[in-house]
Amino acid sequence: MKIIIVGASGTMGKHLSNAFEKENEIIRATGSKGGDLQVDITSVESVEAMFKKAGPFDALICTAGPTHVGPWNKMTPNDFRTGLEGKLMGQVNLVLIGQHYINPKGSFTLITGALSNEPVPMFANASAANGAIEGFVRAAAIELEHGIRINAVSPTVIENSPQYFPYFQGDIPVTMLQLEYGFRKSVFGANTGQIIKPY
Amino acid sequence: MKIIIVGASGTMGKHLSNAFEKENEIIRATGSKGGDLQVDITSVESVEAMFKKAGPFDALICTAGPTHVGPWNKMTPNDFRTGLEGKLMGQVNLVLIGQHYINPKGSFTLITGALSNEPVPMFANASAANGAIEGFVRAAAIELEHGIRINAVSPTVIENSPQYFPYFQGDIPVTMLQLEYGFRKSVFGANTGQIIKPY
Repeated sequence: MKIIIVGASGTMGKHLSNAFEKENEIIRATGSKGGDLQVDITSVESVEAMFKKAGPFDALICTAGPTHVGPWNKMTPNDFRTGLEGKLMGQVNLVLIGQHYINPKGSFTLITGALSNEPVPMFANASAANGAIEGFVRAAAIELEHGIRINAVSPTVIENSPQYFPYFQGDIPVTMLQLEYGFRKSVFGANTGQIIKPY
Repeated sequence: MKIIIVGASGTMGKHLSNAFEKENEIIRATGSKGGDLQVDITSVESVEAMFKKAGPFDALICTAGPTHVGPWNKMTPNDFRTGLEGKLMGQVNLVLIGQHYINPKGSFTLITGALSNEPVPMFANASAANGAIEGFVRAAAIELEHGIRINAVSPTVIENSPQYFPYFQGDIPVTMLQLEYGFRKSVFGANTGQIIKPY
């Protein structure tokens, strides 16, 4: 299977690339240097160029999703755009454009997170972006044709990101292996329109 | 209670303005002509100007939320921005800016819809915008101070919009009175962070 992993230089992307490369062809897409391809997911032109270079593929995984972190009463509409352009519109760009390049029976797997339903202070922007991704995934699933599937993986805080632990009091960190299982379920399974909670 | 109703010239806004004006001071905010104030909710400057003109208030109701309606396989990132700038960012602007003008113990009531969890073809953009609003409402509720509350009302298709009935097969239309009850629960009740389904 030919799999494009967007965000391949990040914590999650590295793990998934290494885990899946044994039995699959992996195209590592990164935001800046390194990887097989570079892409700015907030740019329609850059996303289009990435798919043209990558050629037809069977699965796309996105683990990239910048959002604004900060206190509510100082958050401005401009701060809020960080997650809107990054985690939300970036991933929407990958799917709306990628649908014209993906092979029949291919799959898209996006990244969301427990914040959509379980907010914590400072992360309202991520809660909104995640909620949008989840609504989008459910809606896209009923319209995608040629057997193409779409899901999102929803972890809590990741074990490899201890800098976030103080914000997620009482959330049991998701291990990298659990996270891998979540993506595995989407990419190699048969579900569509699902928000996969790997815990 | 002094209530700003944004979208006061629409089907929902008119009904709510008439229903609530008997016992409250209503400020009708509309997108173009008419009403007490005009506002373009997609513009930060226009939203700021509206709050300055309206003065301190006790409740804000938003019933305005444009989204893109169209088939999935022809939807472009640009089409998708209609709901992102309108129903999503428009309402976020009202809350992020309005938090600095609202009275203590005031409330924000936004509009979402069943599409976030029950998608129908052609409405993926609304599903995403609704999902974002719902995540946003839950997150904002835990950070708003001075007893300020926030909820969203989530109808299915509205009885007064028969042009949408063919898209919402099997969804029992929500009556204007049910919708009014939904907003009433948020504005005059004590809940916060809730997605109110008035059916």
